[in-house]
Amino acid sequence: MGDTRPDEVLPARNLEAIKSVRYFVVENLRSARRFLKSVDRNICIDDLNMVELNEHTPAADVEAMLDPLAAGHDIGVISEAGCPAVADPGADLVAAAQRRGYEVVPLVGPSSIIMSLMASGFNGQSFAFVGYLPVEASRRAAAMKTMQQEIRSRRRTQIFIETPYRNNRLIDELTRTLPGDMLLCVASDITGPQQQIVTLPLSQWRARTYDYNKRPTIFLLYS
Amino acid sequence: MGDTRPDEVLPARNLEAIKSVRYFVVENLRSARRFLKSVDRNICIDDLNMVELNEHTPAADVEAMLDPLAAGHDIGVISEAGCPAVADPGADLVAAAQRRGYEVVPLVGPSSIIMSLMASGFNGQSFAFVGYLPVEASRRAAAMKTMQQEIRSRRRTQIFIETPYRNNRLIDELTRTLPGDMLLCVASDITGPQQQIVTLPLSQWRARTYDYNKRPTIFLLYS
Repeated sequence: MGDTRPDEVLPARNLEAIKSVRYFVVENLRSARRFLKSVDRNICIDDLNMVELNEHTPAADVEAMLDPLAAGHDIGVISEAGCPAVADPGADLVAAAQRRGYEVVPLVGPSSIIMSLMASGFNGQSFAFVGYLPVEASRRAAAMKTMQQEIRSRRRTQIFIETPYRNNRLIDELTRTLPGDMLLCVASDITGPQQQIVTLPLSQWRARTYDYNKRPTIFLLYS
Repeated sequence: MGDTRPDEVLPARNLEAIKSVRYFVVENLRSARRFLKSVDRNICIDDLNMVELNEHTPAADVEAMLDPLAAGHDIGVISEAGCPAVADPGADLVAAAQRRGYEVVPLVGPSSIIMSLMASGFNGQSFAFVGYLPVEASRRAAAMKTMQQEIRSRRRTQIFIETPYRNNRLIDELTRTLPGDMLLCVASDITGPQQQIVTLPLSQWRARTYDYNKRPTIFLLYS
């Protein structure tokens, strides 16, 4: 789910699947309810069984969330933005389902990782998603150097994210730490009305005026 | 595009976009025509301008494919299966468009990389797509060891593919080369009627009967 209208970015198959499910594991109760209402305003939210799974959930609570499966019910997993279990909660739940031999069915949806890679012009035959870079200065610089090495030695596109209020600082750090001819793609507000995906050499990012402050953004490096 | 009905796996936004575009760069002319007809059988294929971009296309021909943009036309990029420019042709075309400052708009679609990762139960905060493993025996074994190291040292899920008639042999090689407690997810026929996504320790894969011969399959390792 995200801020974009569901039928704009989700196939009909997902919308049908959502309507047939009564048990949900969701990252946030309030916004999941709003999302389900936006899919179909006739959905009766009070009839649904919803539990939260996020960074505050004790690991010991995860297994029990699968109990409805034993009774023959399907479970839907909804994360806030992006795909469940990819840079989002849900992987532990899926791992437990796989261990018990339940069928797991992924649904098509917008992945900022894949969409930014498609639009970057970078190598899609080999790439790594790194998540967040370390915050501490020396480890952060080391992580940037490691990415540079992987691009050089393995032609591997590097994809990473940042806390949105630090986006501008990250771009500035990249331009000061890495070679000016390395290419940086900044992909912002993917699928949203302000979508902007721009690939430029770091030397041009350094000379450019930009403001990605607090905008959901994903970063890609290649040369 | 793939064998599944378009409205099952593509959002309405894509189908509208397709109908508004007159210039296409496609991996294969014949199947792209069939795909467009399946989206809307009223589309008049003869009115469309289509050029092929695939492994047989000389690199020097790619830039000229952008010419319609200069005349104010949009260009649609269609690949055979999976997302354009991700483990598929198109990245060079997108790179040229980015160099000239054109807007690039990725569309939501099924990515076997992301969908298999979602359903594997493996780490989605850090992962690498490696493409094909080398064919030559010693380089192939070395590539498997490198994946093992990245899982150990960086907790990074490893994702890779194989020529479909070699799928069974690859699973056998993995069970003989890597530790029995390492987890292998085999994700086959994603979004199709035979979809099957199974995560098991390599020791169990070794003891198991399976046949993925000639089925489109993607492989993931983690521990």
